[in-house]
Amino acid sequence: MTDYSRGCAFIDGDYVPIAEAKIPILDWGFLHSDATYDVAHVWEGKFFRLPDHIERFQHGMQALRMSIPFGAGDIEAIMIECVRLSGLRAAYVEMACTRGLPEPGSRDPRSCKNRFFAFAIPFVWIADPDKQLSGLNLRISLRQRIPPESVDPVVKNYHWMDMVMAQFDAYDAGCENVVMVDARGNLVEGPGFNIFTVAGKTLKTPARGVLEGVTRKTAIDLAESNGFRVERCEVPADQARAADEVFLTSTAGGIIPVTRLDGVALGDARPGPVSLQLREQYWALHDDPEYSTPIDY
Amino acid sequence: MTDYSRGCAFIDGDYVPIAEAKIPILDWGFLHSDATYDVAHVWEGKFFRLPDHIERFQHGMQALRMSIPFGAGDIEAIMIECVRLSGLRAAYVEMACTRGLPEPGSRDPRSCKNRFFAFAIPFVWIADPDKQLSGLNLRISLRQRIPPESVDPVVKNYHWMDMVMAQFDAYDAGCENVVMVDARGNLVEGPGFNIFTVAGKTLKTPARGVLEGVTRKTAIDLAESNGFRVERCEVPADQARAADEVFLTSTAGGIIPVTRLDGVALGDARPGPVSLQLREQYWALHDDPEYSTPIDY
Repeated sequence: MTDYSRGCAFIDGDYVPIAEAKIPILDWGFLHSDATYDVAHVWEGKFFRLPDHIERFQHGMQALRMSIPFGAGDIEAIMIECVRLSGLRAAYVEMACTRGLPEPGSRDPRSCKNRFFAFAIPFVWIADPDKQLSGLNLRISLRQRIPPESVDPVVKNYHWMDMVMAQFDAYDAGCENVVMVDARGNLVEGPGFNIFTVAGKTLKTPARGVLEGVTRKTAIDLAESNGFRVERCEVPADQARAADEVFLTSTAGGIIPVTRLDGVALGDARPGPVSLQLREQYWALHDDPEYSTPIDY
Repeated sequence: MTDYSRGCAFIDGDYVPIAEAKIPILDWGFLHSDATYDVAHVWEGKFFRLPDHIERFQHGMQALRMSIPFGAGDIEAIMIECVRLSGLRAAYVEMACTRGLPEPGSRDPRSCKNRFFAFAIPFVWIADPDKQLSGLNLRISLRQRIPPESVDPVVKNYHWMDMVMAQFDAYDAGCENVVMVDARGNLVEGPGFNIFTVAGKTLKTPARGVLEGVTRKTAIDLAESNGFRVERCEVPADQARAADEVFLTSTAGGIIPVTRLDGVALGDARPGPVSLQLREQYWALHDDPEYSTPIDY
């Protein structure tokens, strides 16, 4: 029997163990990073907000002029099957579409047959639960995030070299992760997450140059229902340094407190009450049938 | 006997037909476009300026903190072997290094084992020789090229989604290819090429936000030896529209005349004398032993 326990992928029409899931090196999804994707997660055997992720993915394909022979229902079924075969109860589940291969000798993307794949692997944490309780030391990058005038961040994409190199810089500086800035020094996003600041009863999160994260949206909804005002606006780095609290939002870990910026403590360097309350409410939502899709293993 | 005639790749220690050359979908070279590469070409059974391409590739790996167990001599031998096995007399030959896979569950690029591969495929033309004699209709993009503050273009990379989408726009506008601009409307580079303008005895080519192309360097050297002055500087789009001639330089096609910008003729809409002279001299250089590495098929 095939062992999918380290992950299962659906690619080129077949379900295969994750280690066997490969794409041709000539696929433009690799050679030109010409691809879009989305990631949903499974927690305690249930997908969280899966339709939201699939809808965003479909919007991304449309923006990139890609099409696949699978509708939302097919994609959902494939993602569920990847998880079911893997047996994973906590999983990171990605769907992706690449441009594919052009006709031999051609450089015309219109000649490509787009390629869809999906995979489920064990849940990936941006910061594991222990680290979340102590809080992250986050670097504010000196490098700029690729701007929306070049690549639209609303179309979730693999253009991450700026973030990978910024992550190296962060490690060099003794930090654990990194948030990028725009050309004017406003915070934007980090590798796989959005960012929020908390000052009194007001939360702020960058409006522009960011992926409109599903966890970001969940955090906004929860904060508003708690009586906070949430502003989608510019967030200058110095404003974050002066905030009461800072937290990150990501499918890969939920709501993640930050307790130091460039090594400098925020307040008493412990996760703040707003971050912790939202984090608790976020995980509680996973049992709400409105937000979850259970898997029949 | 294995058929390598459609191309041959070296990957994970083996030489394989190009269609079998694949990378794991979890490799960060794909998932984060965390990779660098270079392309040399073979013409009439000889590599052109191969050491220059390998040197640039090694510089790129160093900038990205990647390392592989192959030195310049090994890389050259692998590239030659890819071409030899394919039997191709005119080939597009790429070497690449990806970040590789992190430890399971990790998001730390320092835990990755970098992956080297190379491949030879039939020569790819940005514009084929017939098209070069009539000249290209080039669109000046309204989209901005990813800026050097985000991703260093001197490190040759796969961050091309801006260029792919601009290419779609170009086709929509009835053009054949596209050159990108920076935030201030200066020309920078297009998908796989640098650009030059000619006005009287002066050539200009963008200084910043571009790959320092080997064909660009060859064109500069040839033009200077012909008595032209070559300026590496800002090249505003309007300056290009008013130029006597415009041409592109690329490993995938050499020196390529442009005769229309956004559909508007440059002069009499025929390739200009400077472009044609440089083009002829460029191809003649391929027989110069100083610039060529013959392959023993």
